[in-house]
Amino acid sequence: MRVDGRQARQLRNIHIDTEYLKHPEGSVLITVGDTKVICTASIEERVPPFMRGEGKGWVSAEYAMLPRATESRNIRESSKGKVSGRTMEIQRLIGRALRAVVDLEALGERTIWIDCDVIQADGGTRTASITGAFVATAFALAKLQDEKKLPQFPLKDYLAATSVGVVKEKGVILDLNYIEDSSALVDMNVIMTGSGEFVELQGTGEESTFSMKELQELLAAAEKGIVELFELQKNALGEIANRLNL
Amino acid sequence: MRVDGRQARQLRNIHIDTEYLKHPEGSVLITVGDTKVICTASIEERVPPFMRGEGKGWVSAEYAMLPRATESRNIRESSKGKVSGRTMEIQRLIGRALRAVVDLEALGERTIWIDCDVIQADGGTRTASITGAFVATAFALAKLQDEKKLPQFPLKDYLAATSVGVVKEKGVILDLNYIEDSSALVDMNVIMTGSGEFVELQGTGEESTFSMKELQELLAAAEKGIVELFELQKNALGEIANRLNL
Amino acid sequence: MRVDGRQARQLRNIHIDTEYLKHPEGSVLITVGDTKVICTASIEERVPPFMRGEGKGWVSAEYAMLPRATESRNIRESSKGKVSGRTMEIQRLIGRALRAVVDLEALGERTIWIDCDVIQADGGTRTASITGAFVATAFALAKLQDEKKLPQFPLKDYLAATSVGVVKEKGVILDLNYIEDSSALVDMNVIMTGSGEFVELQGTGEESTFSMKELQELLAAAEKGIVELFELQKNALGEIANRLNL
Amino acid sequence: MRVDGRQARQLRNIHIDTEYLKHPEGSVLITVGDTKVICTASIEERVPPFMRGEGKGWVSAEYAMLPRATESRNIRESSKGKVSGRTMEIQRLIGRALRAVVDLEALGERTIWIDCDVIQADGGTRTASITGAFVATAFALAKLQDEKKLPQFPLKDYLAATSVGVVKEKGVILDLNYIEDSSALVDMNVIMTGSGEFVELQGTGEESTFSMKELQELLAAAEKGIVELFELQKNALGEIANRLNL
Amino acid sequence: MRVDGRQARQLRNIHIDTEYLKHPEGSVLITVGDTKVICTASIEERVPPFMRGEGKGWVSAEYAMLPRATESRNIRESSKGKVSGRTMEIQRLIGRALRAVVDLEALGERTIWIDCDVIQADGGTRTASITGAFVATAFALAKLQDEKKLPQFPLKDYLAATSVGVVKEKGVILDLNYIEDSSALVDMNVIMTGSGEFVELQGTGEESTFSMKELQELLAAAEKGIVELFELQKNALGEIANRLNL
Amino acid sequence: MRVDGRQARQLRNIHIDTEYLKHPEGSVLITVGDTKVICTASIEERVPPFMRGEGKGWVSAEYAMLPRATESRNIRESSKGKVSGRTMEIQRLIGRALRAVVDLEALGERTIWIDCDVIQADGGTRTASITGAFVATAFALAKLQDEKKLPQFPLKDYLAATSVGVVKEKGVILDLNYIEDSSALVDMNVIMTGSGEFVELQGTGEESTFSMKELQELLAAAEKGIVELFELQKNALGEIANRLNL
Repeated sequence: MRVDGRQARQLRNIHIDTEYLKHPEGSVLITVGDTKVICTASIEERVPPFMRGEGKGWVSAEYAMLPRATESRNIRESSKGKVSGRTMEIQRLIGRALRAVVDLEALGERTIWIDCDVIQADGGTRTASITGAFVATAFALAKLQDEKKLPQFPLKDYLAATSVGVVKEKGVILDLNYIEDSSALVDMNVIMTGSGEFVELQGTGEESTFSMKELQELLAAAEKGIVELFELQKNALGEIANRLNL
Repeated sequence: MRVDGRQARQLRNIHIDTEYLKHPEGSVLITVGDTKVICTASIEERVPPFMRGEGKGWVSAEYAMLPRATESRNIRESSKGKVSGRTMEIQRLIGRALRAVVDLEALGERTIWIDCDVIQADGGTRTASITGAFVATAFALAKLQDEKKLPQFPLKDYLAATSVGVVKEKGVILDLNYIEDSSALVDMNVIMTGSGEFVELQGTGEESTFSMKELQELLAAAEKGIVELFELQKNALGEIANRLNL
Repeated sequence: MRVDGRQARQLRNIHIDTEYLKHPEGSVLITVGDTKVICTASIEERVPPFMRGEGKGWVSAEYAMLPRATESRNIRESSKGKVSGRTMEIQRLIGRALRAVVDLEALGERTIWIDCDVIQADGGTRTASITGAFVATAFALAKLQDEKKLPQFPLKDYLAATSVGVVKEKGVILDLNYIEDSSALVDMNVIMTGSGEFVELQGTGEESTFSMKELQELLAAAEKGIVELFELQKNALGEIANRLNL
Repeated sequence: MRVDGRQARQLRNIHIDTEYLKHPEGSVLITVGDTKVICTASIEERVPPFMRGEGKGWVSAEYAMLPRATESRNIRESSKGKVSGRTMEIQRLIGRALRAVVDLEALGERTIWIDCDVIQADGGTRTASITGAFVATAFALAKLQDEKKLPQFPLKDYLAATSVGVVKEKGVILDLNYIEDSSALVDMNVIMTGSGEFVELQGTGEESTFSMKELQELLAAAEKGIVELFELQKNALGEIANRLNL
Repeated sequence: MRVDGRQARQLRNIHIDTEYLKHPEGSVLITVGDTKVICTASIEERVPPFMRGEGKGWVSAEYAMLPRATESRNIRESSKGKVSGRTMEIQRLIGRALRAVVDLEALGERTIWIDCDVIQADGGTRTASITGAFVATAFALAKLQDEKKLPQFPLKDYLAATSVGVVKEKGVILDLNYIEDSSALVDMNVIMTGSGEFVELQGTGEESTFSMKELQELLAAAEKGIVELFELQKNALGEIANRLNL
Repeated sequence: MRVDGRQARQLRNIHIDTEYLKHPEGSVLITVGDTKVICTASIEERVPPFMRGEGKGWVSAEYAMLPRATESRNIRESSKGKVSGRTMEIQRLIGRALRAVVDLEALGERTIWIDCDVIQADGGTRTASITGAFVATAFALAKLQDEKKLPQFPLKDYLAATSVGVVKEKGVILDLNYIEDSSALVDMNVIMTGSGEFVELQGTGEESTFSMKELQELLAAAEKGIVELFELQKNALGEIANRLNL
């Protein structure tokens, strides 16, 4: 039994509130236990300079936390005047993940800006961001399609992420909260597509290491959780789910 | 009649959701029409260097907007590496306003950090921030008092703010939304205490000017709105309202 | 009687030296008691990106202090690598104020850059900057008109500013020096046009508040002082005074 | 056959020149094909603030490229005034990897600063950095031990890294050079200890995805290469190899 | 004959107004032709961290230009967020020069902050800064001595600087104004002490070179000018001149 | 006799390894005693904005040290987020020096980017950088000429630099190492062309001064050393030496 009473391979309670904000083309409040992230997808009708003229689109992501998303107050990165390495790592990860399922040719010369703002943090903010950002992106693209701006719906597959880890005496567990994450020997983030392929795998022994056998167990637990996330995403998408190119 | 059907001196619908987040000592989601701001109050058990050893407390405020709080996406200030003049102006205003009603001696050598994060913007974000921050601060101080850390409750009075303006052909209006604000000839932010005194007054003719007579009308409209805000704050405070040193 | 022997509603000695520097289109050294500010107005033959193609001009202002303008040495903002909130607030204020009396259409697609550099500070630097910048701007525009580059003289009215405040036991006083400003309960900056209208009003209770009655007194004192400033500006302008569109 | 004539699971020519520089406690020039990295290990007799008083040491890493390490010249990060996301990601990875094999208790309250400076880049700079940094660290620790400053040799195991990838029509290959890396469908960095455990695994589908079967093949190829790297490290360490706590 | 009618080895008109500002311990307005620089010397009762506990003092210098000191407006370094290479070079030069004549032991653990702010520029601003800063420093030190804070007067000698250059068809000239400087083939700044020794020599061929013979002529011209500057400094110092340890 | 056994006017052992790196158009590892600098020359087919359309080329230089080039570790300038005054001074010097011998008209609208990265420092890094950068530049220009992109070889003369100094009890010495440099009373960097002209002269009394007689001796010593450097450069250039426009 885990600190919050869950089974080893049980996800926390997860909700995805869609059309959460008025202005963005797509917006979602994703709640994973006590972790809450506002994910928005904004369409910009141009691409970054290094992509211009190629007839393809791009996906860029940014990630931040409110100062009091955490137990003690964090100094704002805008006040510090620079973005931390952790933030950069996460926003690069979110962007890369989304680009694996967005059909950049079908998108045309547009940028999808993903913004993931954590308003409450209790572990797993980067994976919740990816899972929520996928839904926000689908809504933004559906709006673009409704405006007849797209030749076809540019999402190739579902995309969701979760964390798994190895905790002393408990072994492999799924969807770690902050307390579990702090004491985990191994921490792994897994991002998968609806067809069961990996998009990204990041496993780290925290001042520790892990064996091939542990890796297998971790991946199996992650896959179980991600399959459940796809179900939640499908429900959140409603009619839009039918537009995916599956 | 105004664009959203209101009377000239009518506030928008306003809600104050208290204890909105898990971690901060005080937290509020204030909704003013389509403007939504998360206001948190965090207690730090020390004061800035320039205040040390004086036996008094301090109030510092920070303000930010999510990139897609607005119609079109704004670049994050953390990405730009610096805070804009507008943001600095607003966060200095919020801090000054709160310091007028917090009894800094009774607070002791502590800092109250106010964070106002606009998640949706439709005009009046700075005044909504002040009105909400007051409630978050009261909750944080009540918690401190419940922990027996305070000799007396260090709030001297209520504090609320609203905007008023002069709009062509419509004259003086109360609580401007974004469209009204954009076309206003004069824009004034008024911050008052429960006892009817001014804390701060900032009136600006936008490429325009205003007369003494218009000023009187603006102040009267503001006062009317602020009295209503005090009522909403009192309800939001519940039992804590009785602790104020009135 | 005040610390420097003035009456409550008496301005300090004020001088405006025009054509103070060789290079700028307009330049002034304004002396208000011991406060000295070099104000220059520079004409740039283009507008900022957000204004292009509108056929209108713009006014931008910057403000700074020499490190030893003050009692103790301040670190340069260039060394710190960022501009303080106070500086930003002041330069935004100066720019807004000037834009209220400059006819931006008549100016054409040009920017007037106002630079206010405080070489000695004794309170009231932001209001001295505005009063001086108005004269520097008039000289720069006169030069532009002499070069036949303007359809008409693009100044709509005079513009001057002063500070007023409430001091314990002394009540309302005009044109506060640094010592008075430091101990004032209320501090208000008032900017007016020659026709007696307000351009901007910024009143702040410093850890204090003020009543409607005090506000009335403050405004009356400010108006008295500003009327005297217009006289000084008129003398400084000489022949150029006749060009104003009054 | 690969572009440079190698077999699919063949490493490039690798050399590790030890004691390469005069000043650092440990320094290495590691050459992996055309990739050349100077790795230094510096001992600082204190730990970062967040570690003080815990009686444990720390490992921090920094990574950079000379502007002309690459085909076309890169702007220096010092000139840009900020470190890129890519650089941050890499230096965090290097530090984490080393911390998995350094016995931080045995190290005592000291910091090992790892600096990896790429003087020539042809793919695999981050994995070459880790493999080289391990050797530089061993030399620095040996020096510390020779000075009788350590209770025991604080290296728990060997540590080496390589990259593997999936390339169209060629399948899984080991130790990708720049051209191979640019066209790879999947790119994975694997860091292992001498005892065959994983320290970190980072696999990314570049606008692509990968299956469980491909993952298995990638890991097998990586392990083969890393075992060869341990042999090279052992030779480079000479007498120091005997000090490891294996 | 030169553009402004001077002889080849003739200085421009030079004035040194002492006690120019109210707050600084020493302050000077130095006018060299159309170049005007405010030089202040501030005493801080501590030294930078790297000097602490050595019982010696330090001299630090900063240099800046008002935006409209020049023909066209320069962007402020505070707005750019960084100090240019040219500014750094100049302020390092000024500090080094002053340290050559200040007796740092006799000064005790204090810092003299030199601030040179160019309000109008017409060539030779760095040498005017040094010549003026010397006088401001002498006044600041005299004040410190009058307050009985110094065992002896800590100035070892006079210090002044000028520029010399080689101009096409005119040969070697002294004290170049901006137009001359722009077209000079060789530009040399010379800093000397009252006893005729060099403190610093910086000669540069601007996309050009110079011979040993030209160097001799340049140095002779510089020495002639600097001897005249010492006379002007002596007059400006008045009674303080007698305190120098000559 | 000097600390390393040299005669007063004897250079250290110097080697120039050419074609040191794979990617740059020209690259050199210059070794001067224990000082080692990688100098690269990169050709960019455009000039900086302020040079465009003039039909001339430009030379820009950057300089940096690896963190452990020195006895104790230096913080990276990229981590600090700004370039130090010392670095700026040096890179401006290197650029200026090269521009004196590069025929910018013959170069055409191109920029030569010089990068000098010190991998080991023992005094004289800026002069070693210039001597090495000259050779790297010659190689890069030869490559450009071989590609038929140049009307003529755009190097007008040799260019080399060394340091000289005055050391207590030893008098004038040539080519100071770090220990000598630290205790020198006078420090002078001299840059000359093959035809014996000066390009730049920077002499500084470090809290000290120097006489005309000492200056003569310093220049004679420098010239002796630089003549030997030209010989080394000539050998390093090989066939390219014949292309210089002498």
